[in-house]
Amino acid sequence: MSDVTDNKSPLAPAYFPDLPPVAGLTFASGPCQIKYVDKADVLLAQFAPGTVAAGVFTKSKTAAAPVDWCRAILANPEARGLVVNSGNANAFTGRTGVETVETMVACAAGLIDCAPAHVYIAQTGVIGEPVAVERITDNLPGLYTNMRSDWAGAAAAICTTDTYPKGATRTVECGDKTVTIAGIAKGSGMIAPDMATMLGFIFTDAAISKDSLQSMLVETADMSFNAITVDSDTSTSDTVLAFATGQAGNDPNADIASFKEAFQDVMLDLAHQIVRDGEGATKFVEITVSGAETDRAAKTIGLAIANSPLVKTAIAGEDANWGRVIMAIGKSGEAADRDKLAISMGGIEIAKNGSVIPGYDEAPVAQHMKGQDILIHVDVGVGCGQATVWTCDLTHGYISINADYRS
Amino acid sequence: MSDVTDNKSPLAPAYFPDLPPVAGLTFASGPCQIKYVDKADVLLAQFAPGTVAAGVFTKSKTAAAPVDWCRAILANPEARGLVVNSGNANAFTGRTGVETVETMVACAAGLIDCAPAHVYIAQTGVIGEPVAVERITDNLPGLYTNMRSDWAGAAAAICTTDTYPKGATRTVECGDKTVTIAGIAKGSGMIAPDMATMLGFIFTDAAISKDSLQSMLVETADMSFNAITVDSDTSTSDTVLAFATGQAGNDPNADIASFKEAFQDVMLDLAHQIVRDGEGATKFVEITVSGAETDRAAKTIGLAIANSPLVKTAIAGEDANWGRVIMAIGKSGEAADRDKLAISMGGIEIAKNGSVIPGYDEAPVAQHMKGQDILIHVDVGVGCGQATVWTCDLTHGYISINADYRS
Repeated sequence: MSDVTDNKSPLAPAYFPDLPPVAGLTFASGPCQIKYVDKADVLLAQFAPGTVAAGVFTKSKTAAAPVDWCRAILANPEARGLVVNSGNANAFTGRTGVETVETMVACAAGLIDCAPAHVYIAQTGVIGEPVAVERITDNLPGLYTNMRSDWAGAAAAICTTDTYPKGATRTVECGDKTVTIAGIAKGSGMIAPDMATMLGFIFTDAAISKDSLQSMLVETADMSFNAITVDSDTSTSDTVLAFATGQAGNDPNADIASFKEAFQDVMLDLAHQIVRDGEGATKFVEITVSGAETDRAAKTIGLAIANSPLVKTAIAGEDANWGRVIMAIGKSGEAADRDKLAISMGGIEIAKNGSVIPGYDEAPVAQHMKGQDILIHVDVGVGCGQATVWTCDLTHGYISINADYRS
Repeated sequence: MSDVTDNKSPLAPAYFPDLPPVAGLTFASGPCQIKYVDKADVLLAQFAPGTVAAGVFTKSKTAAAPVDWCRAILANPEARGLVVNSGNANAFTGRTGVETVETMVACAAGLIDCAPAHVYIAQTGVIGEPVAVERITDNLPGLYTNMRSDWAGAAAAICTTDTYPKGATRTVECGDKTVTIAGIAKGSGMIAPDMATMLGFIFTDAAISKDSLQSMLVETADMSFNAITVDSDTSTSDTVLAFATGQAGNDPNADIASFKEAFQDVMLDLAHQIVRDGEGATKFVEITVSGAETDRAAKTIGLAIANSPLVKTAIAGEDANWGRVIMAIGKSGEAADRDKLAISMGGIEIAKNGSVIPGYDEAPVAQHMKGQDILIHVDVGVGCGQATVWTCDLTHGYISINADYRS
């Protein structure tokens, strides 16, 4: 179903899911030779009039020009278009980078016949090199006249070092209407709490107010894309945009709860797929922290564990090295009671009340570590805060990919 | 000169330096079979009456029992003994761990004939396993009766994954007296701003007040041991202790400036040796940040660059990938003006005013990246804060060491 690369992550899903059409959305993707020859690298999407957009962006202090652009236009009530390219992030490109965005926007707005401020832009790939923007603008008209709305193609077009395209979908009944949500994402390296080099686009035909969509996106990003980490690095380009065309005809003031649940499912599904495509990943790791002062503190502890190179290499080595987990809790800076700490892996209790349990048998934990899905739970014994974060292991594959690839 | 291992870091100094005796200090080291058979793993040092101590410790919230002990006794005016073991960190060992420290202290205090609260303890190695403390206490009397004061032996006894023992010395004239400073340190992985799994011991015969020594140690640690990072991980055991015996007979109220300079030289020398022994390191990297809001902000930015897996793998791959440096500046959270940023590597200007310089020629930078000593300078264009930090690259060697070794 998907044009995955030969070196597909061992944690990849078996196939790209069947994503349905979303009323009010059409799109096309194709190769513009931005970096690689004949790799699809541009996505052009058009939204029906009345579509509303929401967005969350990198917290990087050196954010790229397209991020600045999206932030600036987010206040506009309507969204009509989206252009995404891979191969070049248009980051740290100075005045030229701003002009590149303006040129792309003008071209897409001309095709769609809308205001430039209704066109969103996302770019990912190499940093610091000017974009050969005419390669994009020369190809946008051809894409526009052939909006095949091929999801797998779109998901592949936004990929860089990803080993497989990522998509997720849910449908949900809102009153007597069926609402569809479909999303695609990219990301593999430079994935960190602040969304790193990841792009995510969620499309729905739901009728929902712009404010509701924005607050739902912010809240959901915090527990999905902002709760995953591959390597603690944060990119200059991270962007998650949600677009709601309103064409499902549901009552925007009813049944928000069920829609929100489906929306969260799609976001979390995509976020997990990004972790499963973590550069060099061989293990998918879920870390749950309880007993922290606050939920925020629990997340900080969880990410300290998830970002620890020593924890991640131990997992790669299938070593039930809970001492490194203790170390990572300690370095998080959040309150933890050393003498009340409890740790389990794979549901098997290892330590409690600050030391290893009497008669601890490592054998079942060692067996758990040989699997692909690793569960770590820690309770830090000071309060009621809890959080779950996800990461992958740190392997030779990560080094090989990043000592060569110019990202 | 040193009993370095066969797989010595390519960045190691040619030999262990000739460290002179320090008046008022005697010591011995030897094998106690704590973890490895016949590796020297315990150091016992005795200080003359009147010796003062200073200490800085890990900021870990899950600090080990010996760290708690040292913190508690630091207020005492006198120090008479030090026991260090490698092979077991006595961390996360609960009540047993506290008893282990008390047993070691009582044994050493009995030999030296001093109060237990005058004996310092440091332990490094595996976390979460009880120490077979009798292996240490059985051997301390034998060490005490044979205080050979062999520096290379002492430096080797405190090592774990280190590939070479680390020592540094300076002598300095204070008035008409010659003051000697000698230091040893260990550390290779789990090295981070908060001193990670590192131990450092600085011995001097200087006459200096306890308060002066403590403030000098804190200030110097900040610009040396706390300005290095191998993998961003912070250990439960980090301890740097300084002991001044006062036997040089200098005037403690004069010439502090020249002593301080020599003291800083020793600390920085040891800190650099730890980075040069970073697990899997093939490059020594100095990162200088200027133009930050404050010196503290500059250090945060420097460490964000130094801890970035993507920067470190690029350096391993000898790739002049300055885009990843931009990314790391952005993720630091500190103020930076994207459109005033300047970057150079190896003294060669790459980017300024927020974009690559016109006609940038990568060839000389690529040549610099092939060397062992890598220099990165960034100016973030918002203020006058500056700082220098040191790190190493991230290689397959790091993965190999840490996916196997149970630390």
